[in-house]
Amino acid sequence: MAHDARRYCALPSPFAMKRGGALRDARVAYETWGMLSDARDNAVLILTGLSPSAHAASNAEDPSEGWWEAMIGPGKAIDTSRWFVICVNSLGSDKGSTCAASINPATGEPYRLDFPELSLEDVANAAHVVIESLGIDQLACLIGCSMGGMSALAYMVLHPGSVRAHISVDTAPQAQPFAIAIRSLQREAIRLDPHWNKGHYRDDSYPTDGMSIARKLGVITYRSAMEWNGRFARIRLDPERRDDNPFGAEFEVESYLEGHAQRFVHTFDPNSYLYLSRASDWFDMAEYGNGSVMEGLSRIRVEKAMVIGVSTDILFPLEQQEQIAQGLSAAGAGVDFVALDSPQGHDAFLVDIPNYSRAIGGFLGQL
Amino acid sequence: MAHDARRYCALPSPFAMKRGGALRDARVAYETWGMLSDARDNAVLILTGLSPSAHAASNAEDPSEGWWEAMIGPGKAIDTSRWFVICVNSLGSDKGSTCAASINPATGEPYRLDFPELSLEDVANAAHVVIESLGIDQLACLIGCSMGGMSALAYMVLHPGSVRAHISVDTAPQAQPFAIAIRSLQREAIRLDPHWNKGHYRDDSYPTDGMSIARKLGVITYRSAMEWNGRFARIRLDPERRDDNPFGAEFEVESYLEGHAQRFVHTFDPNSYLYLSRASDWFDMAEYGNGSVMEGLSRIRVEKAMVIGVSTDILFPLEQQEQIAQGLSAAGAGVDFVALDSPQGHDAFLVDIPNYSRAIGGFLGQL
Repeated sequence: MAHDARRYCALPSPFAMKRGGALRDARVAYETWGMLSDARDNAVLILTGLSPSAHAASNAEDPSEGWWEAMIGPGKAIDTSRWFVICVNSLGSDKGSTCAASINPATGEPYRLDFPELSLEDVANAAHVVIESLGIDQLACLIGCSMGGMSALAYMVLHPGSVRAHISVDTAPQAQPFAIAIRSLQREAIRLDPHWNKGHYRDDSYPTDGMSIARKLGVITYRSAMEWNGRFARIRLDPERRDDNPFGAEFEVESYLEGHAQRFVHTFDPNSYLYLSRASDWFDMAEYGNGSVMEGLSRIRVEKAMVIGVSTDILFPLEQQEQIAQGLSAAGAGVDFVALDSPQGHDAFLVDIPNYSRAIGGFLGQL
Repeated sequence: MAHDARRYCALPSPFAMKRGGALRDARVAYETWGMLSDARDNAVLILTGLSPSAHAASNAEDPSEGWWEAMIGPGKAIDTSRWFVICVNSLGSDKGSTCAASINPATGEPYRLDFPELSLEDVANAAHVVIESLGIDQLACLIGCSMGGMSALAYMVLHPGSVRAHISVDTAPQAQPFAIAIRSLQREAIRLDPHWNKGHYRDDSYPTDGMSIARKLGVITYRSAMEWNGRFARIRLDPERRDDNPFGAEFEVESYLEGHAQRFVHTFDPNSYLYLSRASDWFDMAEYGNGSVMEGLSRIRVEKAMVIGVSTDILFPLEQQEQIAQGLSAAGAGVDFVALDSPQGHDAFLVDIPNYSRAIGGFLGQL
């Protein structure tokens, strides 16, 4: 890429990890849009899902389209003419932040499986370092999408007073067994690929098959059966688009999954994927509430919050967003709970821009 | 097993397959319970899901528990003191019927991928041969569960007048893209396993990993998130039940999936699994109705039908059972549509015995 808008923030060294161990000379990547006000009170931090980078939207240094392009910019829902927007690449992700693919300064070799156990609390703490490094004491709003919504809960419970308002998008206060089962199976597909080689893959011997299965399973659970009935039905591929394999793709939906897999497989480090996936399973707000999710959520202090979810989301079901809304409300926040019927499932926040734009833009407009 | 209740029925040779090719010297396995009446008018045929054998219940020759043990027997919902019950192992399944693992008489070697393309119409036609061989002109009732429900629709549309009453259990008139995506990914996991070896695996070089992933994905979609929230929540395995692998099983739900996989992997022939799985994707009642499922269903003539489905089934969603009920009703059958709220998802017919027993027993009792 000719341009790169990434900034890097060094983490304190050593940077202690929640589950033990520490990182030395670690950093996280981030990007920003808009201008920080003199009072430093207009900062909006976005924490991402498992796979996106910090490039949430185009900017002067990097005009390529970001993963939430339609939401972020002057006059858009997250209005960069008013807000100073920061998006942080999760610690442990390979999009510029220190991760399992990074060089371990102690050995001069990539960490691979010697990377310490990663939790979403570590992701949150690293993001908090970025915010402090920018001289921001309190975020005007913290937005977390999917896995980033869990990181955001961790951020708020670990850093009281650091957030005035919160937008929780298609996320959960803990992983439920269905989501654990799906993610465990994704990890298993990677680990069973002989090319994974206990984490010691190379470019010329890469766990392509395992990553492909993991991604396809991801896409299946990120979307919804309802959407696919309308979009793919039982449409067959043209004969020239089929392969010769007797069990190869025949239906349009199979080709759609294959396209998603091919775009993903070599753009995400497999070990980093394993670490972030497991961190998502581990996250549990009940740890902050003597075993009770509601009590854990009640430790979070924000003035206002909006919690958005989708009825077709099978990975982070709507009941879990309702739980977050109830918990934050019980803790004293003014909470808007927005239950959408978007057909796109968990990915709706990336696709159903009209509804998400209206909700998020409306909420931010009233701050 | 010391006892075996299996009977075998030879298919006409050659046995022509719907999509081309033919089988020579093929057979299907079946079991029976109860006595055929002199008028031969009390026969109930059960067509199974993808993996069960013909051993639906214990009997004198084989006292081991069958896959629908709680439903079949004297005084049970499918009352063998009144009905002569037959369960057929699907053509293409490796539980006694001719399948991809069978010896190809033309070569003296297993068919493997030389087995002709299998469709559920072939499964239905083979079952019909069994019924004819028993001297039964018309079934009192045809029961089809899951994949067997699709085979049953094929049976009725291909053999008009052969069925008086029908019970359709947790099935669909065609595969929708979500189900196709899941099954395609299961097949891909097997095919990507290097030990699959394009179908030429051996006992000592067997696609264990691929079959394990396929089975786990199956179990995930056969059950429901709701059931698992109550059953597993976030319960951890005792430390001594964990393995040393840093990404190995940690949660009870992962161990549950592993147990299911281990029980399945070596008890189902991988190639046969591929054939039956693909046949499920291909099945489409719209082929019998000029592209319309409803018109296809309207070609089926039965006097009475009961269609049962479950709101928590993500693989065969309730709307599809409703469609079957509407189609059969439009064709003139008296139809009971039973929508259950069982938490167990697609597998509810194997687990929620009280509800299924009441529905099926009630329906059969009124015939």
